[in-house]
Amino acid sequence: MARASSMPAAPSRMLASDNAAGAHPLVMESLVRANAGHALAYGDDEYTRRAETAFNELFDRDVRTLFVYGGTGANVLALASVLQQAESVVCTNWSHIHVDETGAPERVLGAKLLDLPCADAKLTPDQVRAAAAVRGNPHHAQPGVVSLTQATELGTLYTAAEVRAICDVAHEHGMLVHMDGARIGNATASLGGTREALRSFTVDAGVDVLSFGGTKAGVVFGEAVVWFDPRRALRAEYLRKNVTQLHSKMRYISAQYEALLADDLFIDLGRAANGAATALFEATRHLASLGLTTPPAANSLFPTLRDPAKSRLQEWSFFWDWDVAAHQVRWMPAWDVTADDVAAFAAGVDAALAGA
Amino acid sequence: MARASSMPAAPSRMLASDNAAGAHPLVMESLVRANAGHALAYGDDEYTRRAETAFNELFDRDVRTLFVYGGTGANVLALASVLQQAESVVCTNWSHIHVDETGAPERVLGAKLLDLPCADAKLTPDQVRAAAAVRGNPHHAQPGVVSLTQATELGTLYTAAEVRAICDVAHEHGMLVHMDGARIGNATASLGGTREALRSFTVDAGVDVLSFGGTKAGVVFGEAVVWFDPRRALRAEYLRKNVTQLHSKMRYISAQYEALLADDLFIDLGRAANGAATALFEATRHLASLGLTTPPAANSLFPTLRDPAKSRLQEWSFFWDWDVAAHQVRWMPAWDVTADDVAAFAAGVDAALAGA
Amino acid sequence: MARASSMPAAPSRMLASDNAAGAHPLVMESLVRANAGHALAYGDDEYTRRAETAFNELFDRDVRTLFVYGGTGANVLALASVLQQAESVVCTNWSHIHVDETGAPERVLGAKLLDLPCADAKLTPDQVRAAAAVRGNPHHAQPGVVSLTQATELGTLYTAAEVRAICDVAHEHGMLVHMDGARIGNATASLGGTREALRSFTVDAGVDVLSFGGTKAGVVFGEAVVWFDPRRALRAEYLRKNVTQLHSKMRYISAQYEALLADDLFIDLGRAANGAATALFEATRHLASLGLTTPPAANSLFPTLRDPAKSRLQEWSFFWDWDVAAHQVRWMPAWDVTADDVAAFAAGVDAALAGA
Amino acid sequence: MARASSMPAAPSRMLASDNAAGAHPLVMESLVRANAGHALAYGDDEYTRRAETAFNELFDRDVRTLFVYGGTGANVLALASVLQQAESVVCTNWSHIHVDETGAPERVLGAKLLDLPCADAKLTPDQVRAAAAVRGNPHHAQPGVVSLTQATELGTLYTAAEVRAICDVAHEHGMLVHMDGARIGNATASLGGTREALRSFTVDAGVDVLSFGGTKAGVVFGEAVVWFDPRRALRAEYLRKNVTQLHSKMRYISAQYEALLADDLFIDLGRAANGAATALFEATRHLASLGLTTPPAANSLFPTLRDPAKSRLQEWSFFWDWDVAAHQVRWMPAWDVTADDVAAFAAGVDAALAGA
Repeated sequence: MARASSMPAAPSRMLASDNAAGAHPLVMESLVRANAGHALAYGDDEYTRRAETAFNELFDRDVRTLFVYGGTGANVLALASVLQQAESVVCTNWSHIHVDETGAPERVLGAKLLDLPCADAKLTPDQVRAAAAVRGNPHHAQPGVVSLTQATELGTLYTAAEVRAICDVAHEHGMLVHMDGARIGNATASLGGTREALRSFTVDAGVDVLSFGGTKAGVVFGEAVVWFDPRRALRAEYLRKNVTQLHSKMRYISAQYEALLADDLFIDLGRAANGAATALFEATRHLASLGLTTPPAANSLFPTLRDPAKSRLQEWSFFWDWDVAAHQVRWMPAWDVTADDVAAFAAGVDAALAGA
Repeated sequence: MARASSMPAAPSRMLASDNAAGAHPLVMESLVRANAGHALAYGDDEYTRRAETAFNELFDRDVRTLFVYGGTGANVLALASVLQQAESVVCTNWSHIHVDETGAPERVLGAKLLDLPCADAKLTPDQVRAAAAVRGNPHHAQPGVVSLTQATELGTLYTAAEVRAICDVAHEHGMLVHMDGARIGNATASLGGTREALRSFTVDAGVDVLSFGGTKAGVVFGEAVVWFDPRRALRAEYLRKNVTQLHSKMRYISAQYEALLADDLFIDLGRAANGAATALFEATRHLASLGLTTPPAANSLFPTLRDPAKSRLQEWSFFWDWDVAAHQVRWMPAWDVTADDVAAFAAGVDAALAGA
Repeated sequence: MARASSMPAAPSRMLASDNAAGAHPLVMESLVRANAGHALAYGDDEYTRRAETAFNELFDRDVRTLFVYGGTGANVLALASVLQQAESVVCTNWSHIHVDETGAPERVLGAKLLDLPCADAKLTPDQVRAAAAVRGNPHHAQPGVVSLTQATELGTLYTAAEVRAICDVAHEHGMLVHMDGARIGNATASLGGTREALRSFTVDAGVDVLSFGGTKAGVVFGEAVVWFDPRRALRAEYLRKNVTQLHSKMRYISAQYEALLADDLFIDLGRAANGAATALFEATRHLASLGLTTPPAANSLFPTLRDPAKSRLQEWSFFWDWDVAAHQVRWMPAWDVTADDVAAFAAGVDAALAGA
Repeated sequence: MARASSMPAAPSRMLASDNAAGAHPLVMESLVRANAGHALAYGDDEYTRRAETAFNELFDRDVRTLFVYGGTGANVLALASVLQQAESVVCTNWSHIHVDETGAPERVLGAKLLDLPCADAKLTPDQVRAAAAVRGNPHHAQPGVVSLTQATELGTLYTAAEVRAICDVAHEHGMLVHMDGARIGNATASLGGTREALRSFTVDAGVDVLSFGGTKAGVVFGEAVVWFDPRRALRAEYLRKNVTQLHSKMRYISAQYEALLADDLFIDLGRAANGAATALFEATRHLASLGLTTPPAANSLFPTLRDPAKSRLQEWSFFWDWDVAAHQVRWMPAWDVTADDVAAFAAGVDAALAGA
């Protein structure tokens, strides 16, 4: 196609998603190193003990950590552990558990997700308070758990104070708080970049259980669920297999998490992805039709793009549509996207929009 | 402890379970090789296309193959895809789905497991026929799927003719057949050792959906579910995420299965584990108190052992109790257990029983 | 209290809800008449055969009718029969299944309810079309069934043409349509008052399965689920007990429905309740603060009332709050509310508002 | 048919089942009497308050009583209230919850029923103890609740001491005890016939939650669930609607239970049914081929009958097959079966066997 030939060279790495990237070399090395001899299954091994200790150190207290296979499984296990029967989960209309998990929470939990409209994918204390008003009325599913996503599905962030305000309202009404931290490294990098920062918007803010994500931050597979008060996790070990999320050869997950937590690697990888998003924002903000006016808080941009430029770009270096009706797409750099990748992609955007 | 000091050197590899072993080098190499650059998530990648083709070649037809995280997930997805509402699963009282999956099938499927007593963990056509008698009676869960395990949890095997006889009865009564092939490599090795042998007791015998296991045969993580008639899998892609079993970075599972199927590696690994079990049988059958009179069909032995010899051996080289009341334990070599390991273990058994 | 003494005499019948009324005498007589001698359980009796025939005649074709215990059970059975796994139910944010059934649909169906915002509690074809856009994408629960309520929870009505337009869009996208007809008699009375009218907005409009309500229309207990194409009901008989909704002494439900359908009694009772609501509207519309500007389509009014008048009236003749934040209450006459009741109630409203 | 003409007159009431009988006149009168004016829905009415008080008096303490629609619903609600996630229900292979509820418990509870083989449909303390052995092992569903049926599905009875022994073992292992009392009146009549007797094998023996059945004892519809320690019922009110078992017009159930408990009517009705079974035993025991050697403990007999006599009798006065392979049928008198009915039926059996 003549027009495609006028595009510059495509970047080596796509902006399709942070799960399009591979594993970080240190993580892969740790996984490979774990492949030595025999180890008892199901977590009764040295790798898992070390990884559990690493989580205790990360949060500076004795937490309960269980490894699972994936993000949906982490959320389902976390929610199952803190929901009571006939309760619902309060979440946003953008939340991954509501939109992107093919109904797994409803199927496995048998519980309602009460999705509240939130323009920026962030719940407010007032919304939680309003939802709690039906507690005690036997005709309604009882709001029992608030689920926050950090960073949110729209790339926004809750400050530590915002999380705390929601946790306070939730606890005041007898509810517990789950945080979906599929992009916990991005959030931590953006909110201070230290372990203290991480604690400030999780355990210190009152979060009860955290889905700690690694898949989008350089692991091969495996996520962690962290209960800050181990008493909330009394049935969690049974629940993990009960929801199909217990891996037998646990050492391979644990070993990856040893590497991911060592020297705060997960924060570095979040910072790298966030930085690529910011660089891309800077490199494209001059194109008014994209509508990019605010620098990204984490690692995603949601520009406006119309055909034929959109399709041309997607064929050249793939990315996903976000809101077809609104002509929005999503650009989401992974931890390994380089300055060269960003420059190459931005050049392509320039060319496509010029050609359009 | 003085007595322990009289034990010979412990084997390098335990007999605790086939999931205590690591990944096979070829499998690990393939996984590591897949860690190059970006790939679209959820299976839209070259690794997955090649692995799917490998399954088509293995079964010599266009099958539908979906990769999942683990064995329980594979069974749950397979059963979900073929069960209708208000149906039950006919299985044995030894079946992994009934005994060893912490109620995950009941939770996720919302269906009854009808466990039938089977001394050798093998269902008979007559049992299936008897169970089917309640079909049509609205007061009973309707037997809808027969689930066979091959090799069984007791290390026994169904011949191809036995599988076919059960499938015939099941289909005649409107039921479908699932095979839990968590140890499909061991079964194939024992029943002929060829792809033709594998087909003879699966697709050619009438099995509808197969859990094809790799975790016990040298992979890091990931199992496959294979539908022999793709029309049975119409909802399977939705169901996979719906039951929390969709991995985003699919290439890492697919790449392992490419290696596992290439040159029938999975059969070789099953043969190696079976051979170790046979060697151990030969090396210990002279000890009458063990009660080992029949050579193993696959890779497990269930000797009788009493304390103090039992505990002494378990401390020396761990293995699991099987039936505490009957003083039975389980020895289960993995694919990597060597002749030296077997000899060392047998020497330990000799010493422990002599010392007892 | 002095002020309360200034209130007129309270009406004999409340406006709290149509389920505060008792059973209609003809219905009760039929139930009592069924209490003669023995009858086989579970519907194998003459009463049930006659009631099934009555439903065939009502809809002028061979439908499949199953009786269940209550409204939530009817909805759950109806939805279970037409949902496939990993599908969601498209409904409004006002729908009884979403708001008022304590999460029973999610628990028993294991499925997501996708509640769409609808100011008047009525879905539009465009909303259904937009929801259907994710069909085929394995990351989202698949919209599989549209559930309409007729009359709606806000007392509004779909015209036959509106139902047909929604059914057309739904069917075009491979979805089916459920109608929650807990107040089907009120709807029928308002939309023409004949069997032809009922058919025009149900079976003739393309509805696939109907929850036919009697509890709010003068029965003691028991609802019906009607499948217009019996092939959609193939598993329904198993599902009924599978969701705890099979009554053993079926004749007592069937006998009530014989009476309810005879001479269109259910339409008469709907007409009576609607008429009482209209009369109450006429008798109170002069009170501007109530905000009642539109005559009711069915049997409910949602006036604005503030304390102390509101509480004073509730103590005098109870009714429910509807939207506390908006100061809205609900007045809902049952089939047995008389002109005298309406006059007495309106006089009380006058007095309370005058006293406030 | 010539042979049929040689049969004597059939009894006025069948022996098919105790749910083939109608409602007792006192119960029906109470239901009809409740049909007066308006009453608030969902149990906020005088009938329900009186019925709750009646249950407190029956058990001589403040119990928590919730009315539901039917027996399966009662069992499901009771079990839901005392099960924790990932737990299983220990029951017999004859139990109604396992055999006769179309998988409703698995569907609604998402939990495994662990059915243990029991020749007489009675669990033993040793079976419970053996089942409890897997508690703490995360690979197995955790036995969490023992469910006993009293009278059992085979018409046998647990003595108070037997119930107590099972409760003691269950509680010792951290498990709770449910009793399915679908035929609680028959059991009470047989075990002493007083309220003290009832208490002795329920609350005094350590049962935690009781399904108290009325459907088989003369009510139109409705069962009760009784928690002896109200703290076990904290979520029960939400759970009732959550499992589709909340009736809006509650007064109609409550009024029936007022009548059923007044003057121990339910015990009288159980005694009458038991007496009819005993009379039938006496009237047929001389027919050796029936194999009736032990007088019935409650209201069922399981004679051996072969064709053509069996079919001839079933056509003449219907009863159900029980175990087709063993040629066993079930005769089960209801509360209203008279001495004349028994004599007429026994004469028919004589004639059919003579003719055979």
